[in-house]
Order: sequence, then C-alpha cells, then structure tokens
Amino acid sequence: MTEPFNIALIVGSASARSRTAALARHVSERLNQQGFRVRIVQVRDLPAQPLLHADTQNEEIAAAAAVVEQADGVIVASPVYKAACSGLVKTFLDLLPQRAFQGKVVLPLLTGGTLAHVLALDYGLRPVLQSLEPRHVVSGLFLLDQWITITKEQSAALTDEAAPRLESIVRGFVDAVRSNGEYR
Amino acid sequence: MTEPFNIALIVGSASARSRTAALARHVSERLNQQGFRVRIVQVRDLPAQPLLHADTQNEEIAAAAAVVEQADGVIVASPVYKAACSGLVKTFLDLLPQRAFQGKVVLPLLTGGTLAHVLALDYGLRPVLQSLEPRHVVSGLFLLDQWITITKEQSAALTDEAAPRLESIVRGFVDAVRSNGEYR
Amino acid sequence: MTEPFNIALIVGSASARSRTAALARHVSERLNQQGFRVRIVQVRDLPAQPLLHADTQNEEIAAAAAVVEQADGVIVASPVYKAACSGLVKTFLDLLPQRAFQGKVVLPLLTGGTLAHVLALDYGLRPVLQSLEPRHVVSGLFLLDQWITITKEQSAALTDEAAPRLESIVRGFVDAVRSNGEYR
Amino acid sequence: MTEPFNIALIVGSASARSRTAALARHVSERLNQQGFRVRIVQVRDLPAQPLLHADTQNEEIAAAAAVVEQADGVIVASPVYKAACSGLVKTFLDLLPQRAFQGKVVLPLLTGGTLAHVLALDYGLRPVLQSLEPRHVVSGLFLLDQWITITKEQSAALTDEAAPRLESIVRGFVDAVRSNGEYR
Repeated sequence: MTEPFNIALIVGSASARSRTAALARHVSERLNQQGFRVRIVQVRDLPAQPLLHADTQNEEIAAAAAVVEQADGVIVASPVYKAACSGLVKTFLDLLPQRAFQGKVVLPLLTGGTLAHVLALDYGLRPVLQSLEPRHVVSGLFLLDQWITITKEQSAALTDEAAPRLESIVRGFVDAVRSNGEYR
Repeated sequence: MTEPFNIALIVGSASARSRTAALARHVSERLNQQGFRVRIVQVRDLPAQPLLHADTQNEEIAAAAAVVEQADGVIVASPVYKAACSGLVKTFLDLLPQRAFQGKVVLPLLTGGTLAHVLALDYGLRPVLQSLEPRHVVSGLFLLDQWITITKEQSAALTDEAAPRLESIVRGFVDAVRSNGEYR
Repeated sequence: MTEPFNIALIVGSASARSRTAALARHVSERLNQQGFRVRIVQVRDLPAQPLLHADTQNEEIAAAAAVVEQADGVIVASPVYKAACSGLVKTFLDLLPQRAFQGKVVLPLLTGGTLAHVLALDYGLRPVLQSLEPRHVVSGLFLLDQWITITKEQSAALTDEAAPRLESIVRGFVDAVRSNGEYR
Repeated sequence: MTEPFNIALIVGSASARSRTAALARHVSERLNQQGFRVRIVQVRDLPAQPLLHADTQNEEIAAAAAVVEQADGVIVASPVYKAACSGLVKTFLDLLPQRAFQGKVVLPLLTGGTLAHVLALDYGLRPVLQSLEPRHVVSGLFLLDQWITITKEQSAALTDEAAPRLESIVRGFVDAVRSNGEYR
C-alpha cells in the first residue's frame, strides 16, 4: 500500500467569506474523493505580524511552511487584485525558501470580477511560482466571480460553463502529481 | 507663493534595517532639498491585522491611504522577492481604491541581490502600478544591493556607479511631477 | 515660429485591411489637425527579407528606422496575437538601436477580439517599449475590435464607448510630447 | 515496437551564425541520441513575405506548421531582444492555430548577453507559449552567450557551469514528453 499524495492548498483572499476560499474548499473536496490528503493554508488566518515580518520562527508560520514542504502538489488560489495575485498570498510565498517548490507540481487558480484580468494568471502569478523552481506549473484557470456561488457549507457551486473547465484543469494537475510521484 | 508638491514614498521591505528603507530615506532627503514635502509610508510599521484584512476603517491604515491620496507624486520602493515586488508592498497597494493613482506621477524603485531580477521592475511592478491608473509611471530603477551602503543615520550611500543613475531617475520624476503640477 | 513635433506611428498588423491600421489612420488624422507631423511605418509593407534579417543597411529599413529616430513621440499600434503584441511589430522594434526611444514619449495602442487580452498592454507590450529607454511611456489603450468600424477611407469610426477613451489617451500623449518638447 | 516521439525545435535567431542556433543543434543531437526524432524549424530560413503576412497557404510555411502539429514536444529557442523573445520567433508562433500546442509538452530556451535578461523567460516567452494551450510548459533555461561556444560543426560547446543545467532541463523535458506520451 502506498502513501497518499499530499496537497497544499494556499488560499490568498483578504476577506473571510470569499469566492476564492469557497473554490478552494470545492477543489479540496474533489481531491479528497480521489484519495489525496489536502491541507489548506488560509493565509488570512495566519498570525498577522509574524507573517508580515517573514518570521519563520513563529510556530504557526513554521507549520504553514511545513505544509508546503511536505506536499507533492501545491495549489495557489487567489483573487486578482490590481492586475496580479493578492499581496496576501505573495506575502506568504515570500517567506518560503528560495526553492520551496522543488520537485513539486503546482496549480495556479485565480478568481476575478472581469475577463480583463485573465492574463494575470500567466503574467502575474505564474512567473512568481516559477521562481520557486517547481518541477512544473501545470495549466491553471481564471474563474469569473459570476461563475461561482458560495454554498451554505462554504464550498463553491460552479456554473455549467465553469464546472467542466475546472474539472479538466484539476485532472491535469492530478495526473501530473501522480506521474511525478513515480519518481518519489 | 505656491504650495510645495506632496510626495508619498511607500516602502515595502519586510525587514527593519533594509537597503530599500535606507534608499527611501536617501531619496526623501534629496526631494526635501528641492522643496518637496515627502511623507514615508513604512508598510511594515502599519498595524498588521488591519493591513492584511484590508481594513480601511482602521485609523492608521486610513491615514496611510490619505498620504497617497494627497500626493502629487508617488514613489514605490520595494525589494525584489520571488521575481516580483514584495507581498508587503502589494498588500498595501491592494487596499487602495481602484484609481488611487489618478492624476499622479509614479516612480518605481527596486532593490535586489542579483542582476537577474532587473526585469521585475517592468514586468512585475510596473503593470501593478499601471492598474491604479496614474497619469504616468516614469522610468524607474533597479539597484543592486551591493551598490547601497546603509549609513549610521539609516540613509543610503551609493557607489559611483549607482549614484548618477539614481540622480537621473529622480530628476525625471521631479520634472514630471512639476510639469504635471501645472495642471493642478 | 517653432517646428511642429514629429510623430512616428508604427503599425504592426499582419493583414492589409485591419482595424489596427484603420485606428492608426484615425489617430494620425487627429494629430495632424493639432499641428503634428505624423509619419506612418506600416511594418507589413517593409521589404520582408531585410526586415526578418534585421538588415539595417537596406534603404527602406533604414528610412523606417530614421522615422523613429527623428520623432518626438512614437505610437506603437498592434493587434494582440498570442497574448502579446504581434511578431511583426516586435521584429521592427528588434532592429532599432538599444536606446532608440531615448528622450521620446511613447504611446502603446492594442486591438483585440476579447477583453481577455487587455493586460497584454501592460505585461506584454509596455516592458518591450521600456527596454528602448523612452522618456516615458504614457497610459495606453486596449480597444475591442467591435468598437472599431473601418470606414471607406480606411480610417476608423469608433463607438460612443470607445471614442472618449481614445480621445483622453491621445490628449495625454499630446500633452506629454509638448511638455517634453520644452526640453528640446 | 513503439513509434519514436517527434520533437519540433523552433529556432528564432535573426542572424545566420548564432549561439541560439548552435544551442538548438546541440540539443537536437542529445535528443537524437535518446531516440527522439527532431525536426528543426529555422524561422529565418522560411520565405519572408509569406511568413510576415501569416500566409499559411504557402507550402513551406504550411510544412513548418505541420512539423509543430505532428510533434509530441516543442522546443522554442530564441535570443532575448528588447526584453522578450525575438520578433522572428513570435511571427512564426503568431501564424499557428489558437491551440497549436494542445496535448504537447513545451520547453523554452533563451540566450542573452547579460543576466539582466533572465526574467524574459518567465515573463516574456512563457505567457506566449501558455496562450497556445500546451499540456505543460516545463522549466526552461536562460543561457548567457558567454557560456556557449559555436563549434566548427555549428553545434554548441557549453561551459562547465552551463552544461549540467542544460542537461537537467532537457532531462525534465524528455521525462515529461515520455510521461505525456503514455496518453497517446
């Protein structure tokens, strides 16, 4: 019997009740069903002062960084603010070691209010993820806010337009994590 | 007699004693000498929790946002972390209104340990600044850490290589603020 | 009496009858009315082989490069192809000297079929223009194809939504060229 | 017995005798040794006029596009000009269909004269490649010109610093093509 794969799901929305967080929970449920062990890092719930000062000695910060370190795959989910990923999620990525994604597969997910932000995925977020030297960053997805409804369980229900896209993207990520895992 | 121009200088280094902060102080001194009124926003000194949660009702956060609002020119100084500006500085920019830079002239300044980060200026930081719809973002500068020595007054001394470059860039910013000011 | 300002308008559409070219002609007419001398470089009409091989000895290539050199302001108009400016326009920019935009004001204009390409302006085109070290790149504009109708004079008619935006952007460019010109 | 994998190697240098072309030949030799069938598309040797006008009816242009279509993996090798990939290589990518890289693995390789161009890989080239919707774009490499010597066979000899990096990157690409190929 083999160990299940570990997935770190980093959520970078500044607001408590957000479509990004709901989307993350939805993706987490899908991955759980497929036998992955998912751990969510809600950046907004980390202790604020140590996070901003990149204090990796802080226990909770260290624990969150360890979630990433132990992961086979990393998902970074963020709203688009000011043409890029949120400062919140970037602040967390900033305190990780230089090659924190080495050997890992990474999936970028962005949410936003207008199609005009689509390219923030490949121009704004992906180069940041690449700088952490992952094995590879698979194709990601930009989801319009209007495609996402927050359910009463704080998960996400997707429109018929969005659901198959997300499914296909998650499948690509899952395949890449498994295929990469053969080298473990 | 005319009012002096207001400059907001946003500093986005996570560490207390940083080359970025020293550079900011140095630039501030130069601008003071030329009759500008400079106010520095040290993002790391803002209250952490309200900053992370984009709580613009918080008094100190509101005061920092007002410094930007009242400015004729804005300087954004940040170290390069993970191929982009710091999450810290981005977190502050995120909580500003959509068109917070309207009518203003903006100068981007980055510091970094290796020449390999130079393009973070035009690819990583500038598109974020553009999204705030400034009048214009003038030519900025990437400064190598090794060009900057922190003086005992916590200002910066620059090497002979760097000093004239910074001078020229600051002059371009000053000219643009003044020329733009004629439309006040 | 002072010399009129020279504007170089570089058009980078691969097709003969394009919205980008019509837009360029429209902008050219507006600038002519305001006393500017506009010269258009249709990159697709340059001799193909010398262009591709960056042969700056070729007479027509040299003449096109001279149009840029003599300009006070440069407009780069391109459709968005594959999330960036056209290879055609980039091929022309590639053969210009390293600091070809020094002392000049630059205006980027992009056209595209979907809002999803908006950020190609600030992430795809602007960093390329910055690398030519202009005095500044003013705020540019992305125009949806559907906002542009090609008139029978091969100029462009714009929708009520687009016309005032273009006007405002062109005015910003004009002001910047004039203000910069005081330093001539 | 299975079919060997097809690799399309697109070379985008404007000059006949270039380090980029030599590097491409070197990579091609390595891939041949490992049983891959490599076909090189030298963009500068394609018929210039049809290339610039995106004339996909032209026989040679159509043949070059077919090389990409039939490939399991695509390598895009370009010098850095003006902070991005060459206009030449972009002109070729522009005439490919919207999803030309679908199901394929892609490797970006850039060469340049200074470390200051490193980020052109992830900010300038990679978003363009992503727009062609590949299965994934693996980690690529920026190589300094000084690391590459052109041999008398027009291949490349690499310094001790560069050789292992290229080897590791090519291995990542090879693994990804093979792993992806299981889904053929």
